[in-house]
Amino acid sequence: MGLYSELFYSDDINELFSERNTIGQMLRVEAELARAQEAAGVIPAGVADLIALCCQPDLMDMPRIKSEIKLGGNAAIPLVKQLTRIVKNNDVEASKYVHLGATSQDVVDTATVLQMQEFGQWLVQKLEVLVRHLVEKTSSYRSTPMIGRTLLQQARPITFGLKTTGWLESIGRTQERIDEVKKRLLVFQLAGAVGSGNAQISSEVQQLFAQNLGLKPAFSWQSNRDNFAEWASVLGILTGTLGKIAKDVSLLMQTEVGEVYEGAAEGKGGSSTMPHKRNPVTCAAILANAARMPHLVATVFSAMPQEHERSAGLWHSEWEVLTQIMTLTAGTLERAIELLEGLEVDEKRMLANLELTQGLIYAENVSLALAPKMGKNQAHEWVEKACKTAIAQQKHLKEVLLELKIDVPSVDELFKPENALGLSLEMIDKVLKKFGR
Amino acid sequence: MGLYSELFYSDDINELFSERNTIGQMLRVEAELARAQEAAGVIPAGVADLIALCCQPDLMDMPRIKSEIKLGGNAAIPLVKQLTRIVKNNDVEASKYVHLGATSQDVVDTATVLQMQEFGQWLVQKLEVLVRHLVEKTSSYRSTPMIGRTLLQQARPITFGLKTTGWLESIGRTQERIDEVKKRLLVFQLAGAVGSGNAQISSEVQQLFAQNLGLKPAFSWQSNRDNFAEWASVLGILTGTLGKIAKDVSLLMQTEVGEVYEGAAEGKGGSSTMPHKRNPVTCAAILANAARMPHLVATVFSAMPQEHERSAGLWHSEWEVLTQIMTLTAGTLERAIELLEGLEVDEKRMLANLELTQGLIYAENVSLALAPKMGKNQAHEWVEKACKTAIAQQKHLKEVLLELKIDVPSVDELFKPENALGLSLEMIDKVLKKFGR
Amino acid sequence: MGLYSELFYSDDINELFSERNTIGQMLRVEAELARAQEAAGVIPAGVADLIALCCQPDLMDMPRIKSEIKLGGNAAIPLVKQLTRIVKNNDVEASKYVHLGATSQDVVDTATVLQMQEFGQWLVQKLEVLVRHLVEKTSSYRSTPMIGRTLLQQARPITFGLKTTGWLESIGRTQERIDEVKKRLLVFQLAGAVGSGNAQISSEVQQLFAQNLGLKPAFSWQSNRDNFAEWASVLGILTGTLGKIAKDVSLLMQTEVGEVYEGAAEGKGGSSTMPHKRNPVTCAAILANAARMPHLVATVFSAMPQEHERSAGLWHSEWEVLTQIMTLTAGTLERAIELLEGLEVDEKRMLANLELTQGLIYAENVSLALAPKMGKNQAHEWVEKACKTAIAQQKHLKEVLLELKIDVPSVDELFKPENALGLSLEMIDKVLKKFGR
Amino acid sequence: MGLYSELFYSDDINELFSERNTIGQMLRVEAELARAQEAAGVIPAGVADLIALCCQPDLMDMPRIKSEIKLGGNAAIPLVKQLTRIVKNNDVEASKYVHLGATSQDVVDTATVLQMQEFGQWLVQKLEVLVRHLVEKTSSYRSTPMIGRTLLQQARPITFGLKTTGWLESIGRTQERIDEVKKRLLVFQLAGAVGSGNAQISSEVQQLFAQNLGLKPAFSWQSNRDNFAEWASVLGILTGTLGKIAKDVSLLMQTEVGEVYEGAAEGKGGSSTMPHKRNPVTCAAILANAARMPHLVATVFSAMPQEHERSAGLWHSEWEVLTQIMTLTAGTLERAIELLEGLEVDEKRMLANLELTQGLIYAENVSLALAPKMGKNQAHEWVEKACKTAIAQQKHLKEVLLELKIDVPSVDELFKPENALGLSLEMIDKVLKKFGR
Repeated sequence: MGLYSELFYSDDINELFSERNTIGQMLRVEAELARAQEAAGVIPAGVADLIALCCQPDLMDMPRIKSEIKLGGNAAIPLVKQLTRIVKNNDVEASKYVHLGATSQDVVDTATVLQMQEFGQWLVQKLEVLVRHLVEKTSSYRSTPMIGRTLLQQARPITFGLKTTGWLESIGRTQERIDEVKKRLLVFQLAGAVGSGNAQISSEVQQLFAQNLGLKPAFSWQSNRDNFAEWASVLGILTGTLGKIAKDVSLLMQTEVGEVYEGAAEGKGGSSTMPHKRNPVTCAAILANAARMPHLVATVFSAMPQEHERSAGLWHSEWEVLTQIMTLTAGTLERAIELLEGLEVDEKRMLANLELTQGLIYAENVSLALAPKMGKNQAHEWVEKACKTAIAQQKHLKEVLLELKIDVPSVDELFKPENALGLSLEMIDKVLKKFGR
Repeated sequence: MGLYSELFYSDDINELFSERNTIGQMLRVEAELARAQEAAGVIPAGVADLIALCCQPDLMDMPRIKSEIKLGGNAAIPLVKQLTRIVKNNDVEASKYVHLGATSQDVVDTATVLQMQEFGQWLVQKLEVLVRHLVEKTSSYRSTPMIGRTLLQQARPITFGLKTTGWLESIGRTQERIDEVKKRLLVFQLAGAVGSGNAQISSEVQQLFAQNLGLKPAFSWQSNRDNFAEWASVLGILTGTLGKIAKDVSLLMQTEVGEVYEGAAEGKGGSSTMPHKRNPVTCAAILANAARMPHLVATVFSAMPQEHERSAGLWHSEWEVLTQIMTLTAGTLERAIELLEGLEVDEKRMLANLELTQGLIYAENVSLALAPKMGKNQAHEWVEKACKTAIAQQKHLKEVLLELKIDVPSVDELFKPENALGLSLEMIDKVLKKFGR
Repeated sequence: MGLYSELFYSDDINELFSERNTIGQMLRVEAELARAQEAAGVIPAGVADLIALCCQPDLMDMPRIKSEIKLGGNAAIPLVKQLTRIVKNNDVEASKYVHLGATSQDVVDTATVLQMQEFGQWLVQKLEVLVRHLVEKTSSYRSTPMIGRTLLQQARPITFGLKTTGWLESIGRTQERIDEVKKRLLVFQLAGAVGSGNAQISSEVQQLFAQNLGLKPAFSWQSNRDNFAEWASVLGILTGTLGKIAKDVSLLMQTEVGEVYEGAAEGKGGSSTMPHKRNPVTCAAILANAARMPHLVATVFSAMPQEHERSAGLWHSEWEVLTQIMTLTAGTLERAIELLEGLEVDEKRMLANLELTQGLIYAENVSLALAPKMGKNQAHEWVEKACKTAIAQQKHLKEVLLELKIDVPSVDELFKPENALGLSLEMIDKVLKKFGR
Repeated sequence: MGLYSELFYSDDINELFSERNTIGQMLRVEAELARAQEAAGVIPAGVADLIALCCQPDLMDMPRIKSEIKLGGNAAIPLVKQLTRIVKNNDVEASKYVHLGATSQDVVDTATVLQMQEFGQWLVQKLEVLVRHLVEKTSSYRSTPMIGRTLLQQARPITFGLKTTGWLESIGRTQERIDEVKKRLLVFQLAGAVGSGNAQISSEVQQLFAQNLGLKPAFSWQSNRDNFAEWASVLGILTGTLGKIAKDVSLLMQTEVGEVYEGAAEGKGGSSTMPHKRNPVTCAAILANAARMPHLVATVFSAMPQEHERSAGLWHSEWEVLTQIMTLTAGTLERAIELLEGLEVDEKRMLANLELTQGLIYAENVSLALAPKMGKNQAHEWVEKACKTAIAQQKHLKEVLLELKIDVPSVDELFKPENALGLSLEMIDKVLKKFGR
């Protein structure tokens, strides 16, 4: 996977999509095809086991497969050739039944779906871990006041838990999407050269083949690729959400903000010549992947208008890109879990930053408190004037109000963040309940 | 919509997203917010009707709104300003309750969702029309033989109905996706400046507001934009499928192929100086949109990592792009319906083209027929040799076989497309049944 | 141009690409074609003026053109039809010579190049304005110290002029690129139906036609579209650079940073309920455009593999996208000029922010000062320890050093930003000189 | 490079961008930095050779570098750490001068430029080979008639040389672009932590460093990335042109067209069960790459608005993508050269296809011949009627004309493709001359 395999990717998932395992899934397709055909009486008894025995990646000559892909145009052609030869070395008769009635695309596409199935299981588990972290952070910081920021400007107080609830909800929706897409995605492709099926691939064979692989049968989708585009977009959306989390954390880590940090580790993100630095290296990796992903998703979309019964080029453009989408998603998700696991929150700095505008972020609180007495509009104008004075004289708004002899029971209460949180806690609790808290 | 509004777009949907209607939906949000607040006792009785009465796009000074957007940075700011002034002209007291507790993004986002709701209804209806056409074509051409083509090469026979079944299945999956995305997409955004809600936007207000608009309440998604990305991708997938249909038809319309045509119309696709031409102009429009769409979808994905509680730029990048995605989808779908409605199929030419390879496309039929007698492998080799002879001597394979005194009951049967369709009819019927035929 | 025409776009350039002006350029092509053909003796004397007289957009029935585009598939077909009819109403004989020997694509493509030519002239002028502002800012803030930031963390001091020099250099390279691309881009397309030329479009006609339009003749590029892709990328690169400028300014405007601001204006970027806010609305518009542009550029790249002598769809996909690329670039550039024109720099805040790390950003200065005495490595270690003490005790590094009785002539000098600028001033001056300062 | 390294890529260029060679270029940067600093008297004499001796990729612990990238966030940090340790093992004093004054980005960026330099040299040579093939094909088929096709419909005759001239011109423009971009691209990055330079990186050091590497000095472009975007777009444009060539060839290879073929090779593109197939596998690989490339180019454009003096994420997103752009371009170009080298042209089939419309493609020839006698308009109408008759009666147009007793000297001449080529030969010759023929 190159130099950056541990920065942008996940070791587990890189392994899942290794050359060896990709070929391995194709061989699994061949083995299960033979088994299904034997069970359906399409090929003689005993043949399937013989074939299946040869369906091991370690028996294959990988360099040769790779070099012959250029001739045939896909990986299945040289693979089937080798497999047939190997079977033949064991049993000439059995070798006649290798890949019977199937076409290259049946093998390549079904093997891809099998990798998606395996990747999907990993993904679902990892998302549960991520959700657990998000739920914990949300519970822990449910009432921790911080400033809410719009257009990169301080706006009004929120809690840190309100921010993480937004992240959590978005990940929760991704969990829903994965659940929904599965029924469309996890289907086989098995229909021969032009997708019309044939005597060797009877309905019965298809049924048995599907069962063995844990996939559902489907009408041939050789050149109708909407499911892959959907899968790409589900993963792209997840990566986008993780990018949003990293964007927030990286901004909160700014020297001038300093409210939230990636977990520290020996040698991580620091600099010996710049001892004050704490680089958001995990965020940077997530943001890098999030920047690349939309374009990879779009590539799969661009590949949709495939010609006739099999495309000359667009099908081929999917292969590496789908793998990249899954391996990058995996890396992004692993980094995000690490990020949340180690997240450090500086509640004091959050409080300190709430004071940066010298009370101006509470201006509306004051208006609302005065409204019953002087009317909403007049209150608003009066406070606006007080704010201008505060800004001009560089004073705290509270000080100005006291000088203007503001008549409310307790001026101090108006300047407490916990009195400016709106429905934050109620909103958070509703979501936490949904996630089992 | 510019010069090409009728080529790439749909008049109905252009209208739905006109400036006037966009502003109209924002005003609808303001009106229903006031109504919900009145019903919840947040604002005085009688005020909501007064406000709602002013919520008419025709009362607004559109050029002024457009020029002030540059100052405030979004359309809601100048709109609320104008609306407040208009209400004030009628009733000073009521004007204090315009847009109470809400933020610009509440208005812009909820109005966008309302447009999506309306667009979605149009879309669902049009997809039913498209599906009806696809079901009809599939029924009509269920057993019409044509050549299946892979990598732009003639491969083996299919029926035209098998091809249209692939299209139909893909559209059917889009119908499923639309149905699933609705529950996530059709929610309001109403949570004030930083998404924390406030006294004026109580749970009760939210509930009433949602009911009036036919939307569901949701945790604030101000800077968590996965639903819009999902909607973009659902529409992108649909457009990709329509692109696949147009790709196939445009290839089948080639002078050298001539199997399927766009419907003719006075002045459509022809040329007075090139009388033989029949340009796929409808296909070209669909293919153009399908080429643009992946990049527009990706733009929405790129906009996902939005900063803090409201983004400085990424939110803004969504506005025009989401509209473009919906208007282009609409145009593509309308064109696709026109294409299928008028589709002309030249069954004779399909038959003629099945003869272009002089019987070679049936080579496997011959092998299979001989296998019981001479063994699969030997049969295969024997036929391969015969094919080479046919190619070298430029003869029909049947002729060569007869010269070689092939021993099968009826050679003619081996060269009939209807005997080379595999499971086509069975596969088609299963899908047709699902779609109610 | 819709609701956001003044936010994301430029009025001038919107006008240049209006329906009327687009049709106007196509008519100009027809007029100059006739003139060239008359001058070359291909058509009778006197005819060209008659045709040219009719080549006025106001004479055209625009709604009809727009509706007939759907039939013919491009704008030239209905336009030529109308033009011919109008000429015929004036002079039957002349009408025979309208559009003689030309094809639709000749008209559409050459008209597009003419719009690019006009847009290019506007662009070159505006870039000069932008460069002037950048040179001025760079001169003014050449020695104004501020903190340099890497990975969003304070790193070491730079000057604000060093930052603007980076922007300036990048814009300067865009000026070079525009200059280089012109010779390839500003060529006509005039070669008839299949790009082979014909008797009516002789070399002489081509030469005259080119001269009249200020374009160069070129081998037909009907389906070889690299120049348009190059133009798109040149504009995309410019927009990316402007996005970088806006990104920096928007980050510097953060409440917690507050070093640089967009110019203020009545009603611009403020909020009456949040008096402390100063939203980067101009930056947001620029960043929105910069987020969209890469995807539009990619659309033009995706349109490159056009079929045969004219594409069925990919050519069509360019039309609106090229216009969008130019109109969005124009808006971005206008906003950027406004941004730089009004830019406010808070030099005091810059100085204050240099103190945020309590001297740690100067740690390397200290090391370098000590190196001659105690050796580089030991100096480095000694300072690293001092930094750790400063962080642990939350003291200023200078204070810690004095406590440790550091032995250098003047400790104060080590903590002055002007002593930590490296080659900044020299580097800036070299660039300013290149730009004539 | 995975399973498809020989299909989509070039072995040579994969090697150039291997982990080892990437690290190798970074080490070369460190070595030349030391040499320049020694020559400029910044570091002691003799040190540079010691450092340079250690700058060998084989001395590095690659797995450790890869795993530590995750901590520091880029490859230079662990690399410098290892290099320093290795130097220290040899000479403690020398180890103090490793990477002196430089920053990680200096190393990563300059090493990338060095790889671009090497890749660029390969590219220029390969483009010369491609151009040679294109010039040869153009010369050989200068006058070989074939049908020109627009919107996938037969239009009018061209020659095959006219088509290849369009390809050639486009590649020629890419050669120009590469020549122009070099002066901007092949510059170093060497300016320390925040791009301000420092005492260790004096002007003199920069000058010497640049000389040694064959690069030009430049103002620091740490976060101004337009040159990389330009390089990406130049390569994207080349790939797009190669995609256009492959699109044309793949369409011409269709069974129903059969005019041009990829060269055959044992086992290439064929199918034992479908003996008539000749799959465009090389075209498919090129088209796949051409489909992916626009999205990769767009990724680099999306990465342009980098924050402050070094980005947190966008810089990181460039690394793998730039490499992919170069490795995919290399593969595409190698495949294109193979394609043109082996190209087979079936001139007979071209002639036969010119007859498919039964003379209708020559209708305009007839009009032009009759015009002098009966006037242009009447001639046109008369011929149009004849064409309709021909279509209705399924006769050859010539036959109809003879039945209608057309009065021209030689009807046969009107139906010869060589009389319908317009300026093709003249246009081709002009281009060939430019390319030295």
